[in-house]
Amino acid sequence: MTARGPAPERSQVVVVGAGFGGIAATRHLAGRDDVDVTIVDQHNFHTFLPLLYQVATAGLEPADVAYPVRTIFGRAANVTFRHAQVVGFDLVGRRVRLAGGDDLAYDHLVVASGAAAQFFGIDGAAAHALPLYTLGDARRLRNRLLTVLETADAHPETVDDGAPVFVVVGAGPTGVETAGALVELLEVCVRHDRLRIDAARTRVVLVDAGSRVLAGFDPVASRYADETLRDRGVELRLETPVASVAPDGVLLASGERLRADAVVWAAGLTLDGTLAATLPGGQAPGGRVTVGDDLSLTAHPEVFVVGDAAAVPRGPGGEPCPQVAQVAIQSGGHAARQVLADLAGAPRTAFTYFDKGIMATIGRRAAVAQFPRGPIVRGTLGWLGWLGLHLVYLIGFRGRIKVLVNWCWRYLDWPSGPRLIVGDAESDP
Amino acid sequence: MTARGPAPERSQVVVVGAGFGGIAATRHLAGRDDVDVTIVDQHNFHTFLPLLYQVATAGLEPADVAYPVRTIFGRAANVTFRHAQVVGFDLVGRRVRLAGGDDLAYDHLVVASGAAAQFFGIDGAAAHALPLYTLGDARRLRNRLLTVLETADAHPETVDDGAPVFVVVGAGPTGVETAGALVELLEVCVRHDRLRIDAARTRVVLVDAGSRVLAGFDPVASRYADETLRDRGVELRLETPVASVAPDGVLLASGERLRADAVVWAAGLTLDGTLAATLPGGQAPGGRVTVGDDLSLTAHPEVFVVGDAAAVPRGPGGEPCPQVAQVAIQSGGHAARQVLADLAGAPRTAFTYFDKGIMATIGRRAAVAQFPRGPIVRGTLGWLGWLGLHLVYLIGFRGRIKVLVNWCWRYLDWPSGPRLIVGDAESDP
Repeated sequence: MTARGPAPERSQVVVVGAGFGGIAATRHLAGRDDVDVTIVDQHNFHTFLPLLYQVATAGLEPADVAYPVRTIFGRAANVTFRHAQVVGFDLVGRRVRLAGGDDLAYDHLVVASGAAAQFFGIDGAAAHALPLYTLGDARRLRNRLLTVLETADAHPETVDDGAPVFVVVGAGPTGVETAGALVELLEVCVRHDRLRIDAARTRVVLVDAGSRVLAGFDPVASRYADETLRDRGVELRLETPVASVAPDGVLLASGERLRADAVVWAAGLTLDGTLAATLPGGQAPGGRVTVGDDLSLTAHPEVFVVGDAAAVPRGPGGEPCPQVAQVAIQSGGHAARQVLADLAGAPRTAFTYFDKGIMATIGRRAAVAQFPRGPIVRGTLGWLGWLGLHLVYLIGFRGRIKVLVNWCWRYLDWPSGPRLIVGDAESDP
Repeated sequence: MTARGPAPERSQVVVVGAGFGGIAATRHLAGRDDVDVTIVDQHNFHTFLPLLYQVATAGLEPADVAYPVRTIFGRAANVTFRHAQVVGFDLVGRRVRLAGGDDLAYDHLVVASGAAAQFFGIDGAAAHALPLYTLGDARRLRNRLLTVLETADAHPETVDDGAPVFVVVGAGPTGVETAGALVELLEVCVRHDRLRIDAARTRVVLVDAGSRVLAGFDPVASRYADETLRDRGVELRLETPVASVAPDGVLLASGERLRADAVVWAAGLTLDGTLAATLPGGQAPGGRVTVGDDLSLTAHPEVFVVGDAAAVPRGPGGEPCPQVAQVAIQSGGHAARQVLADLAGAPRTAFTYFDKGIMATIGRRAAVAQFPRGPIVRGTLGWLGWLGLHLVYLIGFRGRIKVLVNWCWRYLDWPSGPRLIVGDAESDP
């Protein structure tokens, strides 16, 4: 059964997922009078993933990076938000099945349901390491980090050398940014919160199987990030595969054990176990759904897969794009344009990725930005650029102001900040 | 065992609880060189309870009303925060027992551990009604309210008359403020979020066994609150005791059933089941701990009980004060002064409550403030006074700015706001 039958004269589009891809697709269709869009997500908010590491390291609050979906589309009369979990696709009957028994009929479907943390089958990783891909992940990680610091303060004798050790696995942008922010969190906690921790003995270890950090960037950018991380006290362990993860640390493939109070998992993404993995058409590397040049499924041209869930080709017949926000935004928009082409009886077009560049921040006044066939900007200028660009892409004027204020505050080193342990496992009296 | 042995020459004070009472006591002792203070709380933050109803109704974010304890006392070298749950008092051995096996030795103890929601043994109330006394309570209530609205939007047919019904039990300040804010939340959700709810049929019902709202206030103030609530669409059911609470509503003592999608419990406080109830010396009304004129236990003059946990006398031999923030702040400060008197070999003094007045807000531009032997201020002026006073009492410049900005935003009716469902039971993919 369907909660509401579609009005016959308007085309029905269902968008699954309110991440960058789903929001971009919906924005392209919002305000039109020839199409109704239903955007479905199990959360009632969009999460600005590039700043998730700031929530995890207590620099920003959850509400700074999350924005209600209804607020984004409040003025678009043809957009409906449905707060529900998608449990299946009936591609033949053209229906999306929701938890609770409802389903949504569609003429076009845009699947933008994202991916999940990739543990590569490493023993203990899923159980003991903490991924960083959702707002819930960020809150759990923050609670763990702050609890580790409180425990170290109360019981220095139970912590080797009296200082916590944090291990970050994966030296891509998420891992580099998290490691940089962890060093700053430790400084703030020792200086302002007077935690009884030997700051000189705390360790932040960044582990990667590859030979350089930010492997997707130019080697010049990698070298800058490498030097900056080491300058700031991050221990870099490159060419160091992880064999297994235990509650108290990491076993390296070399046989060395690395004691850790928390292991952050930033090693990659997979579609294994997600709903999008059930879509037909074959799986590309990372388990991603294979799509045609127009981003639709070959057997079901009315179904598009975009963002992290899809192996989005760089151009016609090209290699898959990386799983980054820009690809999700551009592929979501492209899918929406194909829907409109169908409605207009116009031919579809192939997707081409427009590379606007990539950037990563390493902490206070240090970031690296790399533009295609352009310069590599680093240091304070890179950091200001990183900051400005992320503010531009944040949804909502209010969100931008709040994040800017939070950053200024932190930059000016005022001691307050959202270092609250508000946990899932918390029992309130 | 104790994590750190006390230095013999400095007196050791343990403060249990980082609410208004515990923070006030610790502030009085911070920065001194003759006393060490350890403040213990199971949460690493202080919660500004008077604004909790705003968090519950999505007007403020959790971080707006919570402030890290370490930040408050960051500059006081003689204050230590301990993030731990207290599981017992050894009054003879003068030790506070913590979960995990540690204990803290004290020369003086200040118990400021608060109270718990009072369900009066009403069948089903503890299981199905949602209290509002902790930050966790506020988050759970907000998640419930927003989820009810999303469900009503998706399935109008499952909700009687197609509109949600919220019942608030208890017409004291918390109940009145919550009912007023619920009406505003419904307006915002229907107008800005375009929820498919028949706004004219939504109901907010405020139930109380007594004959008037704000029974602790002057009858003139009660009458104003009564009229304002009714004007704004709150249904008042006075002289209406509740017999039982079920998952789908409330059974009144009259036999009438009131269907409800959520029942907010603001009916009162008790010490039953809390740790402070194990202290000797007899229990006053509400289960509160009986204390002497100096707020100490008769059998243990080195132990003080303050705030909601104690039957704080208005003056020597007087009636107990109400369980409000001002009493907690003043009684916490008094206990600290008695500790200092002991250290100085000076005589103790009796506590006298200085009534600064009471106030409650009923929503946008409507509040009532009542001063002892002074005027009753109401309407916009009362609201501005309420707003200003709450800003003054909020801890931290940053917190004040953030709350003020959030309020201005809401007042100007800008559509964004923290209407995020970030739940305890949430499963992140």
